[in-house]
Amino acid sequence: MSLLGIFVWELIGTAVLILLGNGVVANVVLRKNNGHQAGTLFITFGWAFGVFTGASLASPSGAHLNPAVTLGLAIAGKTPWSDVPVYVAGQMVGAFLGAVLCWATYKLQFDDHPEPENTLGIFSTAPQIRRKPWNLVTEIIGTFVLVAWILLSPTAKVAAGGTPEFGNSALGYAGVSFVVLVIGISLGGPTGYAINPARDLGPRIAYAFVLPIRGKRDGDWGYSWVPVVGPLAGGALAALLYLAVHNLT
Amino acid sequence: MSLLGIFVWELIGTAVLILLGNGVVANVVLRKNNGHQAGTLFITFGWAFGVFTGASLASPSGAHLNPAVTLGLAIAGKTPWSDVPVYVAGQMVGAFLGAVLCWATYKLQFDDHPEPENTLGIFSTAPQIRRKPWNLVTEIIGTFVLVAWILLSPTAKVAAGGTPEFGNSALGYAGVSFVVLVIGISLGGPTGYAINPARDLGPRIAYAFVLPIRGKRDGDWGYSWVPVVGPLAGGALAALLYLAVHNLT
Amino acid sequence: MSLLGIFVWELIGTAVLILLGNGVVANVVLRKNNGHQAGTLFITFGWAFGVFTGASLASPSGAHLNPAVTLGLAIAGKTPWSDVPVYVAGQMVGAFLGAVLCWATYKLQFDDHPEPENTLGIFSTAPQIRRKPWNLVTEIIGTFVLVAWILLSPTAKVAAGGTPEFGNSALGYAGVSFVVLVIGISLGGPTGYAINPARDLGPRIAYAFVLPIRGKRDGDWGYSWVPVVGPLAGGALAALLYLAVHNLT
Amino acid sequence: MSLLGIFVWELIGTAVLILLGNGVVANVVLRKNNGHQAGTLFITFGWAFGVFTGASLASPSGAHLNPAVTLGLAIAGKTPWSDVPVYVAGQMVGAFLGAVLCWATYKLQFDDHPEPENTLGIFSTAPQIRRKPWNLVTEIIGTFVLVAWILLSPTAKVAAGGTPEFGNSALGYAGVSFVVLVIGISLGGPTGYAINPARDLGPRIAYAFVLPIRGKRDGDWGYSWVPVVGPLAGGALAALLYLAVHNLT
Repeated sequence: MSLLGIFVWELIGTAVLILLGNGVVANVVLRKNNGHQAGTLFITFGWAFGVFTGASLASPSGAHLNPAVTLGLAIAGKTPWSDVPVYVAGQMVGAFLGAVLCWATYKLQFDDHPEPENTLGIFSTAPQIRRKPWNLVTEIIGTFVLVAWILLSPTAKVAAGGTPEFGNSALGYAGVSFVVLVIGISLGGPTGYAINPARDLGPRIAYAFVLPIRGKRDGDWGYSWVPVVGPLAGGALAALLYLAVHNLT
Repeated sequence: MSLLGIFVWELIGTAVLILLGNGVVANVVLRKNNGHQAGTLFITFGWAFGVFTGASLASPSGAHLNPAVTLGLAIAGKTPWSDVPVYVAGQMVGAFLGAVLCWATYKLQFDDHPEPENTLGIFSTAPQIRRKPWNLVTEIIGTFVLVAWILLSPTAKVAAGGTPEFGNSALGYAGVSFVVLVIGISLGGPTGYAINPARDLGPRIAYAFVLPIRGKRDGDWGYSWVPVVGPLAGGALAALLYLAVHNLT
Repeated sequence: MSLLGIFVWELIGTAVLILLGNGVVANVVLRKNNGHQAGTLFITFGWAFGVFTGASLASPSGAHLNPAVTLGLAIAGKTPWSDVPVYVAGQMVGAFLGAVLCWATYKLQFDDHPEPENTLGIFSTAPQIRRKPWNLVTEIIGTFVLVAWILLSPTAKVAAGGTPEFGNSALGYAGVSFVVLVIGISLGGPTGYAINPARDLGPRIAYAFVLPIRGKRDGDWGYSWVPVVGPLAGGALAALLYLAVHNLT
Repeated sequence: MSLLGIFVWELIGTAVLILLGNGVVANVVLRKNNGHQAGTLFITFGWAFGVFTGASLASPSGAHLNPAVTLGLAIAGKTPWSDVPVYVAGQMVGAFLGAVLCWATYKLQFDDHPEPENTLGIFSTAPQIRRKPWNLVTEIIGTFVLVAWILLSPTAKVAAGGTPEFGNSALGYAGVSFVVLVIGISLGGPTGYAINPARDLGPRIAYAFVLPIRGKRDGDWGYSWVPVVGPLAGGALAALLYLAVHNLT
């Protein structure tokens, strides 16, 4: 795949992922919506099948959609290091674009919202209890599960030289969406499971600097590095587990 | 596939889709139902697996079930323009029939309902905040995701010349139902995600002109063109993205 | 498959289906349960994946688990009429056994329940509004969707001479469980979607004549024929549609 | 597979299963979580897709993750008895480790929790009504369904000599996660469906002896043998059914 192709497919896939992921939170948070206060299971389904949709769209580039995944695959020797900046650039631009599309979808609801200073949570994560070292631990563990699964599950073996299941059938991407669903359900309580630096930072930039939301707050920059560093560390640790297990067994 | 075949399969698939999609809203809205007030996740599951059921039934004709999908496929060069009117005719007649079957299923509940003037929402969509230009934007974005996914996901590549997955296995249609699920969850807040002109206009006609619901209201014709024009525009834009991406990469 | 094999596999599959289907209602209805009042989506998931589990267990016999399915397949020429009584016998005995196992699972909760006269609803269906002709219509439409899907979806074509997907992969049965899920969600409001004479009559017999539930009511025999006759009529109509469509296209 | 390999893969898979399974209960029980009081369907989804994630990770060792499954496979002649202790050791160590990771993920929430004596339920099961003979029956029936499905479903036949579906595609493990989902929904009411001795005993040991939860209670050792003995008996009974059915048909 050409570098342009990687950029375009990662951009499209990540834009759709963020449109759908930010979208479900907008639906639940903003009033005068069919999904207003529809609950946490509703939100985790939105993100999970947002991953399904974005990832199956982006299959030509391998559907990373996440710098922590790209980093883990690079450490594991499955993605060339020279491709990494292009992957991340496509993901960041896509995430920014997805946030803008989410805003357009819910434009009337943003205008109607009585507490616009609370709208950052639609776009980016925040901890329920703010203690950054432990917030980091939570994000590391969540991302570790995601990237370890991508590297160690049968899917990985297939991609290495068997039937290229993920390239042939959209349904193959259901597996990764189930993993994202359960990470949200089981590990998303304390920090909102960013588990993806682009998913958190791209929409945060869009919110803070671009989107015309009346009365909005700042980008909470003091916390913003946690959902970047935590996922990258979790992805790297998962790649080390992958390398260790393959040497051991 | 003969034109008669296209008409019959699209009619059957769309009728089942609308029976199940209108049915879940009837179950939630009308009292003395097991699903009364069962919530938004319940409704989005009903529509999503209504798509699964209708689409896997209609696989011989390609299971469009939606004029916006047919238009997108025609612009992308995957469906002959001469077949388009037959597809749309089957979809419209099927949608009308599905609404009638939904009414028959819930006949006793319609009779019992104390607010019959509120029953249009069982059959057709309405915006939470009525500002047609932005309602159009919401419908365009939702349908764009659906048709872009159909055209760009691995499924499309398979249909073009690999293993015809959608023709062999009902489970292949789970992918499109997951996409419809997440569109409902993530983009359905403001307008109820028509994303399909036949899904909205067919039952609207059945409601306004045929179904014997005592005390019912009119068909809200002032809004009725939005869930027709928006989805068609979204489908066309998705086809343009498809053509652009295929020239670029 | 020998007649003994048909009997044994249909018995096992139907017993597991009814254990799981009756079980979810017991979990929701009886107090001192983790799933007490867990809602309608919870109940429809229990029945849907009860079908998945029972049907994938019973794959050697074709996993009918339902006299309405057996009747539809016989009319469509896919099951020999001479096998029909053995299928139905296995289904009825299995359904009875499943109800007994459900009672054993929830024995302490039945003892604790303050309104034992309300426990019939755990085992068998009842209409929300009792008007038998329209209750019949609802059951006919629901079963029609189920059996039409089994006969017309790509699965049916596969079974007729392609890759025998249902025989190789448990996951193939996910399709039919998605259809049962949406029938429950979208058409289950008025009558509780029996859509299966054995599912309704077997547990009703177990409840009325065998299970030692203190203070229980009678078997509501005046309604009991509706969830038998309705499903059989719906299955037969679906088979007629199948034959008509195959002559037409 | 070497004994070291069995130990490592069962350890990894069970650790992830317990991290995700204990995690969803922590999310629901502890306040200041996004999933606080998110309901029983939420919890059953967490465990079900925890099984999906852990089992697809552990595919090299066959993904037992459960001594009751290992016992059933050994009785059925599918796993050598000499491997059984290594499977169980990996499962127990993994379950212990998963509980520790769950604690680390929710560390701040544990510190904040006003009723720490109620935290055992995050890690291990307890009955709603404590009468051990009937609690045993409930655990036996639940585990019987799980192990009978593993042994008798088409998956088992595939593993015996056809296409090794579970080794090639992560999605193959969706089947077993659907079965665990419905066991939780339909049979989990009375005892919380341990259905796995390692899932219950490993986290119980971690809770009682290791985890630094201020004000925690003891390990409820009087009940602790029920979710060990019940699942083992259920797994053994399922293996006997498997052997009987294969002699009969």
